[in-house]
Amino acid sequence: MEREGLVLPLEAVRSGQNVRPIGQDVTAGETVLVRGVSLGPAEIGLLASIGRATVLAHPKPRVAVLATGDELVPHDSVPGPGQIRNSNGPAIEAAVLSAGFHPVSLGLVGDNMDLLRAAILDGVARADALLTCGGVSMGERDYVKPLLAELGTVHFGRVAVKPGKPLTFAEVRGVPVFGLPGFPVSSLVSFEVFARPALRLMAGLRRLWRPEVEVRLEHHVRHDPDRVEFQRAVVTRREGVLWAATTGVQASGRLRSLAGANALLRLPVGHSAFAAGTEVTALLIEQPEVDRLP
Amino acid sequence: MEREGLVLPLEAVRSGQNVRPIGQDVTAGETVLVRGVSLGPAEIGLLASIGRATVLAHPKPRVAVLATGDELVPHDSVPGPGQIRNSNGPAIEAAVLSAGFHPVSLGLVGDNMDLLRAAILDGVARADALLTCGGVSMGERDYVKPLLAELGTVHFGRVAVKPGKPLTFAEVRGVPVFGLPGFPVSSLVSFEVFARPALRLMAGLRRLWRPEVEVRLEHHVRHDPDRVEFQRAVVTRREGVLWAATTGVQASGRLRSLAGANALLRLPVGHSAFAAGTEVTALLIEQPEVDRLP
Repeated sequence: MEREGLVLPLEAVRSGQNVRPIGQDVTAGETVLVRGVSLGPAEIGLLASIGRATVLAHPKPRVAVLATGDELVPHDSVPGPGQIRNSNGPAIEAAVLSAGFHPVSLGLVGDNMDLLRAAILDGVARADALLTCGGVSMGERDYVKPLLAELGTVHFGRVAVKPGKPLTFAEVRGVPVFGLPGFPVSSLVSFEVFARPALRLMAGLRRLWRPEVEVRLEHHVRHDPDRVEFQRAVVTRREGVLWAATTGVQASGRLRSLAGANALLRLPVGHSAFAAGTEVTALLIEQPEVDRLP
Repeated sequence: MEREGLVLPLEAVRSGQNVRPIGQDVTAGETVLVRGVSLGPAEIGLLASIGRATVLAHPKPRVAVLATGDELVPHDSVPGPGQIRNSNGPAIEAAVLSAGFHPVSLGLVGDNMDLLRAAILDGVARADALLTCGGVSMGERDYVKPLLAELGTVHFGRVAVKPGKPLTFAEVRGVPVFGLPGFPVSSLVSFEVFARPALRLMAGLRRLWRPEVEVRLEHHVRHDPDRVEFQRAVVTRREGVLWAATTGVQASGRLRSLAGANALLRLPVGHSAFAAGTEVTALLIEQPEVDRLP
């Protein structure tokens, strides 16, 4: 009930005098939906039953997506020596769409201060939020973070999270901007963990987070004890127990560690290893696999 | 990653000779996605990184929705004596859309054999699956089940599940038809538990089921021990534990028992009551509520 869940009434809805409820549901003049509730199928049925064909509701946020980096060529071009295709743009736009919002593509801009400044200002003018990919590390051509500081306020420029350490959050002309890291896995995990809940909050939703469940590790897992780490995993339900297996090498550049994953394991600071069978917390980003029909 | 998850490649995708992977990802000629994988943001990023702008994929099923019953008027009309507004049509269409499929509205048809026959044949001609609402009980004007038997094959006409006992499943001209019960809660719960996984299977998805988790009951729950029962509940996560509170009176006509619910508790046969604190299985139909930022 995700997609309709993005439309929330901005005012309480009361039944009118012409209500003929289906037995138990509603009496005349009663409040049937309070302000801020998500409109899923049941709520739409309830509104239909009292004859409310329209309600005042939140719009879905428009989210601009800007890919940056001199090393990138469009995904449908052939890269030359030292170049790679832009995968972050299409992936983050797909993530915005999956989350139920409207992506606004700003395409791909190289490491050029003036072009990047113009693209950021274009993004904050055309959308309710801006997501940039790349340019937030400490390299000398990483212009996005300095530009966000020049054009607005940088609220934070680094997080103690792996992957995604250089994640930057800023406000430019009143519009929230997430400076996502350039590594493909880092940008998708940062979107999932930081940007998606923030965009859901902007959409007026009350339920911001992915379902969190305790899962049992199928194998030994190593982990950097200095940072909270999100490892990509496949969670499978067998005989009432959720089991998690990570998706192989967890390098930030390795998109294949996210492809096919249905969960992120949240590994806390202070431990460097977890034995097989240990319970850890997982964010479910898709349905768990099942072994058979229930 | 629900929405993109509906587009699945019909063939394995191999990288070409022009691959310049981002370090660890892909070597030339390697298979990067196998047949039947869901295309979420990470998979789209992976395809972009190897320059595959298009892939052969499953279409989203078109799902026809037909509301039936002499007692119904359209949701934007004023009901006369003995009439109620059609809430099932809008609710089930919203559920189809939320599940990521294309709803095809067949509107509302009264309890008339010839009109219903024509509407069912129209539905199976125009869509990949048909959902009817009402007309499957044992009343003398319940024409849908006899018509499905006349026009095709009824595979089952009753289930030992509450709510939703009269749920009927048939095939007409090769198209699957779910005869959903007429009570609003019964039709939505039957959609959720039976039709949604079947439609996901038709869409080629491998993950058919809602996330299932163990939750602790916040209060005593009574239950009909003769049938599996799905009670509507709000699941809240507090300090790592998922707690479930049911949404009040669980009558089949009471849409408000589903409005605001984020889970269905699956209560097994053979027990008539569950004490507060007992663990039961819940299907998460929305994100669990959280008490605060994590």
